[in-house]
Amino acid sequence: METYVVADIGGTQIRAAVFQSENPIPLRIKKIRTRDKVQTPIERMIGLFKEIWPTETRVAAIVVAVPGYLDKNQGVIIEAPNVPGWINLPIRQLLEEQFHVPVLVGNDANLAALGEWRYGAGKGHDNLLYLTISTGIGGGAIVNGKLLVGYRGLAGEFGHITIIPNGPLCGCGHRGHLEAVASGTAIARYVAERISLGVKSSLSGITNPSAADVSQAAVNGDALAIQAITSAGTYIGHTLADFLHLFNPSIVILGGGVISAGALILEPIKKALQEYILGRSYLDQVQIVTASLGDNVGLIGALALAETTDFG
Amino acid sequence: METYVVADIGGTQIRAAVFQSENPIPLRIKKIRTRDKVQTPIERMIGLFKEIWPTETRVAAIVVAVPGYLDKNQGVIIEAPNVPGWINLPIRQLLEEQFHVPVLVGNDANLAALGEWRYGAGKGHDNLLYLTISTGIGGGAIVNGKLLVGYRGLAGEFGHITIIPNGPLCGCGHRGHLEAVASGTAIARYVAERISLGVKSSLSGITNPSAADVSQAAVNGDALAIQAITSAGTYIGHTLADFLHLFNPSIVILGGGVISAGALILEPIKKALQEYILGRSYLDQVQIVTASLGDNVGLIGALALAETTDFG
Repeated sequence: METYVVADIGGTQIRAAVFQSENPIPLRIKKIRTRDKVQTPIERMIGLFKEIWPTETRVAAIVVAVPGYLDKNQGVIIEAPNVPGWINLPIRQLLEEQFHVPVLVGNDANLAALGEWRYGAGKGHDNLLYLTISTGIGGGAIVNGKLLVGYRGLAGEFGHITIIPNGPLCGCGHRGHLEAVASGTAIARYVAERISLGVKSSLSGITNPSAADVSQAAVNGDALAIQAITSAGTYIGHTLADFLHLFNPSIVILGGGVISAGALILEPIKKALQEYILGRSYLDQVQIVTASLGDNVGLIGALALAETTDFG
Repeated sequence: METYVVADIGGTQIRAAVFQSENPIPLRIKKIRTRDKVQTPIERMIGLFKEIWPTETRVAAIVVAVPGYLDKNQGVIIEAPNVPGWINLPIRQLLEEQFHVPVLVGNDANLAALGEWRYGAGKGHDNLLYLTISTGIGGGAIVNGKLLVGYRGLAGEFGHITIIPNGPLCGCGHRGHLEAVASGTAIARYVAERISLGVKSSLSGITNPSAADVSQAAVNGDALAIQAITSAGTYIGHTLADFLHLFNPSIVILGGGVISAGALILEPIKKALQEYILGRSYLDQVQIVTASLGDNVGLIGALALAETTDFG
């Protein structure tokens, strides 16, 4: 049995945990804010690791789930847009120098896919697709029983697929990506734009309604809010059809805050999927389910990465 | 050393060959027309197998490359639109009853990717993307050193990805797929439509110019022909950027008749790829090359499938 120390870095929080192999319930877990007036995020992460570091046993590896682009071979974070200063950060080298154990890095949404596969809703599915729809859109795929990461670790950017050429601006700077029209950010923008054009809504009085506000208003029957979520779901379902043509998974797992709107988002997703799929055979026996691991999915995915890595 | 009998089925021709393992040069090879007034395509294929069947040695398996959708687990061709009568065809059962050896089936473009990986331009690249642009658009991916086929064998439909919602009609019946705007068929249609609108071109006198006619006219400097090919290349490059975000391969192999237009198509592909890629790291060290196996790529891919299959 091995012991791993893992972290999941977000724009708001750093979570860290100690796991033992084959057990997704952490021995120890702690979360802190990512930003601080004195320390950098990397200093805060190192401090958190020291705090939870097990003294009674040897640590086999550190794994860090990162919200951005990384080179898995070099252990370098190329860019994590929501974490201040994380551009071309040699995270493996920094952590190996501090802790003297092997260090792995993975994209957070990719690792979430791996976590759902080994410990969550995707158990037993060796061809699996995972999408997380929240502020942004990310995802991951299991292909032939292995995580899709590509030759450098940059694969699985499911949110940055063009669905409307020259469409709305995406957070990445390009236009018309899925994330630009179907993320929580896009849903909130859809509502704000229409209110500014004079469309009536229960959200009219709220300054900058969030995606969660829109969900709540939709539950309460607000027509504009329902329209915004239906639009996002339709784009997701249409793009999901394309992903099924590429990956032919036996399960699709949907996670992230936007999916917690339930049938309001799931029904338009399923409707568009039916409409745009090449043929019934892509949907026969395919499960469309919601994620099961909750807020610790990134940590559990990091555990799963350690378990499926040969440290030679 | 094993001996395999393989076939590559096309709308026009059936090719069949006998291979020995690890050797992409066939012991025997023969091609015949797919259609005939007396025999069905399946009868013609069985006849061709009997003709080339090796008498001196045991055959380890039959592999058939099919231009369509198939269920690899059941060995059933769900639909091969260009082969008369190939709908829900239990090809494995039919061939096993005739020849009493294991039978594998694969999508022709998927198998071409596998062939280029083991014996062609993609050797040594365990994350590889292959696109073939001809009458239609197909492709295949190697992920972590294995062919992407999905749970039933339906994966890798790279031509049936939406790039213009509600765009031009695709051969599959849906709208705005890559194949509908960037295949040889789409290039020929682009030219024909503009000529019918009065645009001047050296192709004006030709009834139904083919994609090959358009290529030739482009080489000769015809502005409309160049425009048609540039448009297709731009769509391919844009979509290829999305595929790189999903698969992060170390090599992209481009094959098919349209690619033989050379720089006329490759330059717009590369230009659009540069423009739409998320970041330099997706292109650093990535090779963009043309296919190397020629007309036998499907047969060689079928050999490669046999070699990478455990017949237990």
